[in-house]
Amino acid sequence: MARRHRVVIVGAGFGGLSAAKALSGADIDVLVIDRRNHHLFQPLLYQVASAALSPADIAVPIRSILAGQKNVTVLLGKVTGVDTAAKSVQLADGPVPYDTLILGTGARHAYFGHPEWEADAPGLKTLGDATAIRHRLLAAFERAEATDDPAARRRLMTVAVIGGGPTGVEMAGAVAELAKTTLKGEFRKIDPRETRILLVEAGPRILTSFPEALSVKAAKQLARLGVEVHLGTPVSLCDEDGIVVGEERIPAATVIWGAGVQASPVGKWLGVETDRAGRVPVQGDFSVAGQPDIFVVGDVATLKDRDGTLLPGVAPAAKQAGAYVADVIKARLAGKSTPKPFRYRNYGNVATIGRGAAVADFGWAKFSGMIAWWLWGIVHIFFLIGFRNRIVVAINWLWSYLTFKRGARLITEDKTP
Amino acid sequence: MARRHRVVIVGAGFGGLSAAKALSGADIDVLVIDRRNHHLFQPLLYQVASAALSPADIAVPIRSILAGQKNVTVLLGKVTGVDTAAKSVQLADGPVPYDTLILGTGARHAYFGHPEWEADAPGLKTLGDATAIRHRLLAAFERAEATDDPAARRRLMTVAVIGGGPTGVEMAGAVAELAKTTLKGEFRKIDPRETRILLVEAGPRILTSFPEALSVKAAKQLARLGVEVHLGTPVSLCDEDGIVVGEERIPAATVIWGAGVQASPVGKWLGVETDRAGRVPVQGDFSVAGQPDIFVVGDVATLKDRDGTLLPGVAPAAKQAGAYVADVIKARLAGKSTPKPFRYRNYGNVATIGRGAAVADFGWAKFSGMIAWWLWGIVHIFFLIGFRNRIVVAINWLWSYLTFKRGARLITEDKTP
Repeated sequence: MARRHRVVIVGAGFGGLSAAKALSGADIDVLVIDRRNHHLFQPLLYQVASAALSPADIAVPIRSILAGQKNVTVLLGKVTGVDTAAKSVQLADGPVPYDTLILGTGARHAYFGHPEWEADAPGLKTLGDATAIRHRLLAAFERAEATDDPAARRRLMTVAVIGGGPTGVEMAGAVAELAKTTLKGEFRKIDPRETRILLVEAGPRILTSFPEALSVKAAKQLARLGVEVHLGTPVSLCDEDGIVVGEERIPAATVIWGAGVQASPVGKWLGVETDRAGRVPVQGDFSVAGQPDIFVVGDVATLKDRDGTLLPGVAPAAKQAGAYVADVIKARLAGKSTPKPFRYRNYGNVATIGRGAAVADFGWAKFSGMIAWWLWGIVHIFFLIGFRNRIVVAINWLWSYLTFKRGARLITEDKTP
Repeated sequence: MARRHRVVIVGAGFGGLSAAKALSGADIDVLVIDRRNHHLFQPLLYQVASAALSPADIAVPIRSILAGQKNVTVLLGKVTGVDTAAKSVQLADGPVPYDTLILGTGARHAYFGHPEWEADAPGLKTLGDATAIRHRLLAAFERAEATDDPAARRRLMTVAVIGGGPTGVEMAGAVAELAKTTLKGEFRKIDPRETRILLVEAGPRILTSFPEALSVKAAKQLARLGVEVHLGTPVSLCDEDGIVVGEERIPAATVIWGAGVQASPVGKWLGVETDRAGRVPVQGDFSVAGQPDIFVVGDVATLKDRDGTLLPGVAPAAKQAGAYVADVIKARLAGKSTPKPFRYRNYGNVATIGRGAAVADFGWAKFSGMIAWWLWGIVHIFFLIGFRNRIVVAINWLWSYLTFKRGARLITEDKTP
């Protein structure tokens, strides 16, 4: 009996998972490799960092998602390279062979040549990142309550969020809510409502992926929540004490990085040139030039649409790419012609800011404020993977909405080996 | 104006929290010090370790619980000693004075003179313990799927729980459910139903705090779930490879310790003799002999009831003790006579084993099986602190009950500083 064609998918993010699902039932062996056991619903990660949701609310075991798809095997492991000549990926335990390879390994945050800033200005890409930021944030209020030194207290009660993209905006808004409503009345020496929250963006406006009118509205909604929006000046230093914006030093105990991303080292593995953010340029079918058996999807790929715009680094784009690549592979194996060219379908762009505050751009219509916020909530609950997660998240949100409380305000000492 | 009387409570477990609540509204300043920011509902900790619940489902910020009680202040800090002459407790930042002191600092697990066993046989007392055990357990199945060595696989698929008290029984039952129902069908090379689960108890029966007939029933219910119950032989060694029971070496990748506890070092702080488990003997009003301004409650105290039985180390006993001590303090300050002597009201004893399997002893009636299990669930949801937790836990349980799934199966890399 002939050996079945083997597709190896590295990374069970939105792109990889969507490819695996689309390949299910085909006469192909699919192996999904991820260094973590869970698929993460990254768009809600800032809610874990700000203590509104628990890690398990936005993460589902990859095995559990793919259990019913009998031609799919899941392996927990860290890929460290690709041998394109031998057609195998490198794992700690040895090489794993592939016939076709799909790489969807995502991105980490990047510090524009200042990796030393990471320790003091952590980014937000994994559950570990999110619980570490939550710990910092909550511990700073505890230390502010315990100290009698006004300068130290001021610094402990200052939170700086770097980067005015969706992550930065959502994080700043969530911190404002935490400080100004949730924690209100729980301390005796400090008043958490006096927390200073800065959103620092080097460019001239926040949320550049939205129309300018919505950027302006978002900035106004942030200001109403008590966030100071600093535009036009980059952060020139992050250290133990806080940040420097232009010439001004701002002491801040909690600094959160949302300014830049760097793709995982797929370019190095494949020996191909990448763009400055480390992304691999792909052909119209997401294959790598000269390596037709290797596809790259999601945040680690860069694809110019026919009108010259780049495919955005968002979940729907990665999902659509994964499904498209699965179609290409199935068509090839069936000896059929390639499916019609990929075209990104943009169903809309939504960013939340806080309680009743969001912006939404559907092309044909734009919303801000309460309507946008409800749309955002419904869309995100709908796309959350896992029936239980949807219910639990909906209840958590309803509970927070009615009581102003947050469910996951834990400072834990973690002992994970 | 005269300075108000100051009560310092160390530890916001069941005892300390109950005292703080009972002192609320009194003409007294109350300071609650805990080294963690959350009160933990310890009776459900094994459900976090076995991936059924999330940490936030069983833990609530102490500040949040006590926010409405204006005479109560909460401080996050680690007490390292007591100066009984100066009437102050030691914190890293310096001494904190008290007029009356309540110590409810709980217990950790103990290894009968073998502290070196802890690394390989972790216990279960904090959220950090629980997530570490969850990580070990889930990672072992992943490694079993990845290996081709039958002996290594056998070891990875063996879980040994040491100690046949409620913690051990509940943990063994929960692991059996996880392996035999939840994970079923999610792996391709291993069958999680073949997991070997041992419960090792040195004494002649499990659940010694229950009548013997219920111990026998519990053992039968465990056997039905596929747990091997080993009675009458102590564990003589825990190491990297597994355990030794009597003369028999049993390779096991996951070993969970539920056999012994050691009270926190309150005896040393106060310079008083303790029992072998480190507990401080207290007077009938929970004060320490010769130190009428110091009370000790919960797992760190030992009190003989008038009929000679020891007050059990369970949540209801600690709660009743905390409330009683508050009454004693209020009576003293009001110049009234001491309240009538403390008497422990035992409302019943319930231990769960697995799906539809539990034992319950109410004195006037004994139950096992499905009825006991429902009673257990209702009682535990009722006593969970926080309205939201109750709803979320109830939904999680209902969801698990209907789908056999578990909501918190995450292997996370934690980065908490």
